[in-house]
Amino acid sequence: MKENIICLNEVEAETFLPNDLLDKVKELLGSHRCVNPEELDGEAEWQEILRKCNPEILVAAWATPTLPADLPQLAPNFRYVCYLPGSVRNLIPRSILESGIHVTNWSGSVSRTVAECAILLTLCCMRRVRYWTEEMHLKGGWKTSETVTQSLFERRVGIHGFGLIAQETAKLLQPFTPHISAFSPSVPEEIFRKLGVSRCDSLERLFSESDVIIELAALTEHNQKIITEALLRSLPDGAAFVNVGRGAVVDEEALARVAAEKDLQVALDVYGVEPLPKDSPFRGMPNVMLLPHLAGPTTDRRQDAGSHALENLRRYLQGEPLLDELTVGMYDRAS
Amino acid sequence: MKENIICLNEVEAETFLPNDLLDKVKELLGSHRCVNPEELDGEAEWQEILRKCNPEILVAAWATPTLPADLPQLAPNFRYVCYLPGSVRNLIPRSILESGIHVTNWSGSVSRTVAECAILLTLCCMRRVRYWTEEMHLKGGWKTSETVTQSLFERRVGIHGFGLIAQETAKLLQPFTPHISAFSPSVPEEIFRKLGVSRCDSLERLFSESDVIIELAALTEHNQKIITEALLRSLPDGAAFVNVGRGAVVDEEALARVAAEKDLQVALDVYGVEPLPKDSPFRGMPNVMLLPHLAGPTTDRRQDAGSHALENLRRYLQGEPLLDELTVGMYDRAS
Repeated sequence: MKENIICLNEVEAETFLPNDLLDKVKELLGSHRCVNPEELDGEAEWQEILRKCNPEILVAAWATPTLPADLPQLAPNFRYVCYLPGSVRNLIPRSILESGIHVTNWSGSVSRTVAECAILLTLCCMRRVRYWTEEMHLKGGWKTSETVTQSLFERRVGIHGFGLIAQETAKLLQPFTPHISAFSPSVPEEIFRKLGVSRCDSLERLFSESDVIIELAALTEHNQKIITEALLRSLPDGAAFVNVGRGAVVDEEALARVAAEKDLQVALDVYGVEPLPKDSPFRGMPNVMLLPHLAGPTTDRRQDAGSHALENLRRYLQGEPLLDELTVGMYDRAS
Repeated sequence: MKENIICLNEVEAETFLPNDLLDKVKELLGSHRCVNPEELDGEAEWQEILRKCNPEILVAAWATPTLPADLPQLAPNFRYVCYLPGSVRNLIPRSILESGIHVTNWSGSVSRTVAECAILLTLCCMRRVRYWTEEMHLKGGWKTSETVTQSLFERRVGIHGFGLIAQETAKLLQPFTPHISAFSPSVPEEIFRKLGVSRCDSLERLFSESDVIIELAALTEHNQKIITEALLRSLPDGAAFVNVGRGAVVDEEALARVAAEKDLQVALDVYGVEPLPKDSPFRGMPNVMLLPHLAGPTTDRRQDAGSHALENLRRYLQGEPLLDELTVGMYDRAS
C-alpha cells in the first residue's frame, strides 16, 4: 500500500503550514502518514517507514532525516520531495537527485524578506543606527550640531548580483530612488529593463559610482573574496556597504581594515565563518552594523514557503510543470 | 534703495542651496545683499542692515537673528520671509505675522525623510535591531534555534495622525503591506481614499487591531499623553510601537512600564523632554530602540527645502499663490 509522507516537527508544521495550509496539503496528498522526526528511533526506523509506506511524495523540512542513498530500491514509488525550506544538501544525496527524483524548495517565495532586510540595513547605515544605539543606551548620548544624517532618497544604489532577492530589493528601493544599477553578467537585459534598473558593466564602476552597495551575489568557486580591498577603497566617502548575500564573497579582513580607516558605513548579516567568531574585528566597530544571519525568511513569513509548496503539490498531482524545480546544477551551486 | 536679503551662515547656504540653487535664488531676488549672521556685531547691526536695505524679501534659516518687532516701521517695504527650515517661532514675532507679512517654510518638502525614519524604526522593531546590536557587539552573540524574526510584510499598520508625514509614510508602507489604517478625525475622506488607507474610528481600535503603531499625531493642548497605559496594553503581543511625531503625545512613564512587562518592541525618535535625560528609563531597555530626534530632514535632503523655497520665491515674484503659506493658526500650533 502506498502512503505519502509528511515529515515535519511541530514548529515546522505550525510555521510553514499555519491556518488551513496543513489541511490543504493533507487533502492533496490523499492517503498519507504524518511522521514527527523528533519521535523517530534513529535511521533504522526512518528507513523502515520509507520502505513500508513506499511513498510517491515526501513533504519535508529541516528536521527531516537524510534520505538513504538506496531510496530508489527501498521505495520504488518515490518521485517527488516537496522541501519547505531552502538548501536540500542535508536531506538529499546527490545521487537521488541524479536518479530523476523531482525536488522543489522555497525558491523565490521568501526572497522578499531578505530584500526587506537589505532595505533595513541600508537605512540603518544612513541614520547610523549602530552608533546611536550604543550612544543612546550606554553613553547617555544625544545629537550635537555636528551630527550628520543621511537619507536613502535620491541615492545611487548599486546591487552586486541580480537574482530573485536582488530583484525584490530593487522593487523595495524604487520608492526611495530612481538611481539603481546592478552588476550581473548572467542576468538577461529584459529583467533589468522590466525593473527599471541600469546594467553596470563592471564591479569597479559599480563600487566607485554608488553611494550604497548591496551585496547579493551568489557564492561560486570563482567569486570568493571578489570584493577586494581596492573595490572597497574606491567607494565614495560616506558610502554604505551592505551584505545580505554570502560573507565569503567579500575579503573580510580587507573590509575590517577599510571600515577602520575610511568614512564608510557597513552593515552585515552574513559572514565567511558563521557563527561569527567572538573575536571578529567587526564586533565593537562603531560604523559596522551586525545581525546574526537572520535576513532569510522571517519566522512569520515561512507561510509564504508553505503556500508555494502547496501550489507545487497541486501542480505535481495535476501533471503540470513544477515551479523552480531543483536541478543538479542548482544543487551543486547552493551554499 | 531697496535690497533683498539672504541671511544664512555657510553651512546653511551649502546644505539648503547646494549646486546651482543659491545662484538661482540670487537671480530671482535681483538686487540683494548676502549677510552672514555669524559675522554680525549684535542686534544693532542686524537692525541697521534691515533699515538700510529696506528689503521686500528675506531668505532666512536657523542662524538668522530674530526680526525686531518694529520691523514694519524699520523696513516699510518688507513683505515676505522665505524661511528655509521649519518652525519660525525664534525668527518671527507673532505680531509681524499678524501684520500681514507672508511667510513660507519647508512645509511638506521634507516630510518624506521623517516617513523614511518611521519605516526604518518599524523594520528595526521587526528584526530586533536594538537587541542584536548589543548582543553582537558587546556580548559575542549569535542567533539560536529560539530566535524569532518578524517581517513587515502583510502586517496591520495603524498610523495615529494623517498629516503630510503620515501620508508619505503610508506611501512607503505600501510595498510591504496592504493593511494600513489611520486615526485622524480631521483629515478628509478623500485623502484616505487616494492613498488606499482605511479610516479607523477610534484610538482604541487602532491600537487593539494593529501589529505596528506609528505615532505621528501633531501635538496640541488637547492630546498630551493621549497615548495612555490602557491603549499601550491593548496592543497585540509582539506588536511594535514607533514614535517619530511628538513625545508629549505619549504617557512615557506608562510606556516604559508597559515595555518592561509586555512582549512589545518600541522605537522612539522623540521624547517629552529633549535631550532625553541621561537617567531616562528607556535608556538600556533591550526592547526599546532610541534615536536622538533625527528623523527630521536629513542633512543631505535640506536641498529639497531649498528647491521648495526657490519655487515659492518664483511664485511670490510672479504674483502667484504661495505654497503652504504660514497662517497665524499654524504659527500657534507649531511645536
